[in-house]
Amino acid sequence: MISVIILGAGNVATHLYSAFKKADGVTVKQWYNRSLKSLQEHKNEVEIISDIALLKDADIYILAVPDDAVAALSRQLPFENRLVVHTSGSVNIHDMDKKNLRGVFYPLQTFSKDADLDFTHVPICIEVLEKPSYPILKALAQAIGCRSHRINGDQRSALHLAAVFVNNFTNQLYRIAHEITESTGVEFDILKPLIAETAHKIETLSPYLAQTGPAKRNDKKTIKKHLSLLENDMHEAVYKLLTKSIQQTHGTLTKQPDQNP
Amino acid sequence: MISVIILGAGNVATHLYSAFKKADGVTVKQWYNRSLKSLQEHKNEVEIISDIALLKDADIYILAVPDDAVAALSRQLPFENRLVVHTSGSVNIHDMDKKNLRGVFYPLQTFSKDADLDFTHVPICIEVLEKPSYPILKALAQAIGCRSHRINGDQRSALHLAAVFVNNFTNQLYRIAHEITESTGVEFDILKPLIAETAHKIETLSPYLAQTGPAKRNDKKTIKKHLSLLENDMHEAVYKLLTKSIQQTHGTLTKQPDQNP
Repeated sequence: MISVIILGAGNVATHLYSAFKKADGVTVKQWYNRSLKSLQEHKNEVEIISDIALLKDADIYILAVPDDAVAALSRQLPFENRLVVHTSGSVNIHDMDKKNLRGVFYPLQTFSKDADLDFTHVPICIEVLEKPSYPILKALAQAIGCRSHRINGDQRSALHLAAVFVNNFTNQLYRIAHEITESTGVEFDILKPLIAETAHKIETLSPYLAQTGPAKRNDKKTIKKHLSLLENDMHEAVYKLLTKSIQQTHGTLTKQPDQNP
Repeated sequence: MISVIILGAGNVATHLYSAFKKADGVTVKQWYNRSLKSLQEHKNEVEIISDIALLKDADIYILAVPDDAVAALSRQLPFENRLVVHTSGSVNIHDMDKKNLRGVFYPLQTFSKDADLDFTHVPICIEVLEKPSYPILKALAQAIGCRSHRINGDQRSALHLAAVFVNNFTNQLYRIAHEITESTGVEFDILKPLIAETAHKIETLSPYLAQTGPAKRNDKKTIKKHLSLLENDMHEAVYKLLTKSIQQTHGTLTKQPDQNP
């Protein structure tokens, strides 16, 4: 049985708590937050505390708090030589107080408080400073049905950055498409099957091989027509830049149109 | 029974043929292509022809050929006053020869020749010049299990443009993420659940409400860190522009950080 104590009450803390609660082989010993208010609804299932001095003994302490609160919280912990992990994609592992054994348990997913999430599809990226800390974190990921990946700090930074591209930036492209369709009074919903298929396609095909469209074909006529339709300067700038990016990737910038696939 | 004749042998033609073949209530009377070579494998199932003079009578003629071939092919048709549709997102309906009744049967999806596609998830956008042509095109879409949407030319142009954003440009963001992860030797595959969830999320949430991340929060520290990690000029330009676009959408450009959600 792996005993964990969760510190924090945000989206990641809440989703981890639900996953641990369901898991065999994991027990949540305490749930700490500075304010008890957001933990009240769980008080009959788990010991909730707001005084850090009351923290009990556990195998793993999970600091699921905002990035800029990790370091300070790690210094406040009233014990030493225990395993303490944070869950952030971008906080350096060395930012945590070295009085404890340090690790990272980073679930690479987008969390909304309300959206129900099947945790078994969430990859857990594990980083440790002391080798012996690894097996128990791997076991914890396994207990909640997640695939885990041992990575180093540079790799975690790269994943966090790449996640901004595939999540925040992709979502902004959806938003722009929403604005474009709305401007002619056509339903954005018509695009949803295409959005699903675009994501689905790269499960078996690399993004390089999955690419299609006017930019890749260097179809100047369509590109020109699209640019003439765009009335919003920002939409136009995004169209131009991503067209150029595709053409750089596929070497269509210097080729003649008839040489393209 | 709706009788159709397909003209062309590309991805859209091939996928439409498969869908029609499976459908009750639709019969493919002939399949025309300039060259018979790519149709040979179907010669035992359907009459294949390469001579346009041999075209028989049918309810609908579907010009599933490259955009710049639509107009010329429509002029070559050896008959008048029949229903002729193209399948393109961007060709103007008036580009087809007016000797026939004109329409558009535009499946809004990304087609790969090899990828098996469940056609029932493909929305069909229907445009007609003559009102009486509409019901049979709607019935054809229905026969292959597709939802159809009656739209006008401006709306089709907007959808085609928006499709470039959610498909080609999104896929390029996946590609950039692939390059970023590869540069530190970490698997791109770790991002796939996030990619799937990002697409899944907007099935129930608008892209506006689904947005999260450093740009929306105006988290300057993380943005600065990300920019310092980006070694590729194009990646950096894309990061900066899409961050700005998100901040424009969410009004975070002029706000102070502490006022953000």
